[in-house]
Amino acid sequence: MCQLLGMNANTPTDVMFSFTGLAARAREHKDGFGIAFFEDRGVRHFIDRDGASHSPVAEMVKRYPIKSEIVIAHIRKATVGAVALQNCHPFMRELWGRYWVFAHNGDLKGYAPRLHGAFRPVGDTDSERAFCWLLQELAKAHAAVPRVEELSRTLRELLPQPAAHGTFNVLLSNGQALWAHGSTRLYSVQRRHPFTAATLADEDLSVDFAAHTTPRDRVAVVATEPLTVGEDWEPFAPGELRVFAGGEAVARHRAGA
Amino acid sequence: MCQLLGMNANTPTDVMFSFTGLAARAREHKDGFGIAFFEDRGVRHFIDRDGASHSPVAEMVKRYPIKSEIVIAHIRKATVGAVALQNCHPFMRELWGRYWVFAHNGDLKGYAPRLHGAFRPVGDTDSERAFCWLLQELAKAHAAVPRVEELSRTLRELLPQPAAHGTFNVLLSNGQALWAHGSTRLYSVQRRHPFTAATLADEDLSVDFAAHTTPRDRVAVVATEPLTVGEDWEPFAPGELRVFAGGEAVARHRAGA
Repeated sequence: MCQLLGMNANTPTDVMFSFTGLAARAREHKDGFGIAFFEDRGVRHFIDRDGASHSPVAEMVKRYPIKSEIVIAHIRKATVGAVALQNCHPFMRELWGRYWVFAHNGDLKGYAPRLHGAFRPVGDTDSERAFCWLLQELAKAHAAVPRVEELSRTLRELLPQPAAHGTFNVLLSNGQALWAHGSTRLYSVQRRHPFTAATLADEDLSVDFAAHTTPRDRVAVVATEPLTVGEDWEPFAPGELRVFAGGEAVARHRAGA
Repeated sequence: MCQLLGMNANTPTDVMFSFTGLAARAREHKDGFGIAFFEDRGVRHFIDRDGASHSPVAEMVKRYPIKSEIVIAHIRKATVGAVALQNCHPFMRELWGRYWVFAHNGDLKGYAPRLHGAFRPVGDTDSERAFCWLLQELAKAHAAVPRVEELSRTLRELLPQPAAHGTFNVLLSNGQALWAHGSTRLYSVQRRHPFTAATLADEDLSVDFAAHTTPRDRVAVVATEPLTVGEDWEPFAPGELRVFAGGEAVARHRAGA
């Protein structure tokens, strides 16, 4: 299975520590990786067919402190679709003059939504198909980019539909907010003042966040497995949607609630 | 003004030599750079607000021999639009399940095409506006991805329209071919057997292509200025469109011809 990492901060923050934790898991996830950093409305989007433990692109990302308010990363173990660049997450499209970035953990069985809109998959993953369908339906629901609350309401109606076909742990962002949908396994952690130290679960690496932050900083991290020990990683309920903006969860919607 | 670099080869080829030549010019072009590499239907797309002479991303591109059949690169000196990531070329969108990559040298004065289709600019450059308009019109002209000849015919009708508003030296690709449109300054060079050595015009760097190629290799390079000395860089006529596929020009269309 793949691994997801999402980050939302209220001030541009680097994810080198968390990405190192994610890349440590890449030893068994050798079929590509990708990471997207929002910067204002622009996106830096890095993908590689090589695993994150070998890729020179991943090496650069670990060393180069790109600061961002919203980050989505993915490391891939191919289940559906060949090991090809066009199958690497996160996927990116433009809608309403905003870039949208999407990454998925899980499989969707027999998922063949009708794609009659402006978004077509380039590769052959069920994930990209679901992303295209989501954007197509968003484009029908709103004429221009709506507020985060309205987008969240529409996403609450849309996300259960692909999710009904299998496992649909998902990270989605357009730079305004980070939407995280849990299906079988997704966790988030809130970091805020007073910051403490954290140790990566898979590596002998610690960071003292207090040394790198101000009291006003807030950072939320989402991942398919807790990346650190000694922090309170909160599991998502099946079907739960959490919306992160300004470095914290601004809404939590349980399935059917 | 910005600088463009395009490459089309009949076998995956690295552009480190040409990109080094382009980056040498980045000393005065410090407002961002970008480079896109097609790999099958996928694209590696690197952009940075930093100039190519300082950017860690450009450093990685120079050291890491990414091999590709089609490459489009751009170094930017801001004329229209702020120095922001969303204004960095090349721009990328998806149409008909293919990624499209576009870079532009020049200014378009008072260019405000009607954008009523599925493509909206994220940044505020005239270039991205022209790209969105081109894709909107291509989407109207064909229901699915047509053959290169048909696309070229449509592009010959479309390209003069933004070009009428100013300077429109352009590189465009969807992975099938590289389209190069000259307005005021664009050159291409053909490299094929027997390969010779070339020396970068701006750097004390030479490469003996014969040592890195087989007799069957063919490579075409397009740039806003000849990058090497001792090679036959052929200028584009105003309004000329050259179509490159399989490492060579497969069509040349003069304006009005």
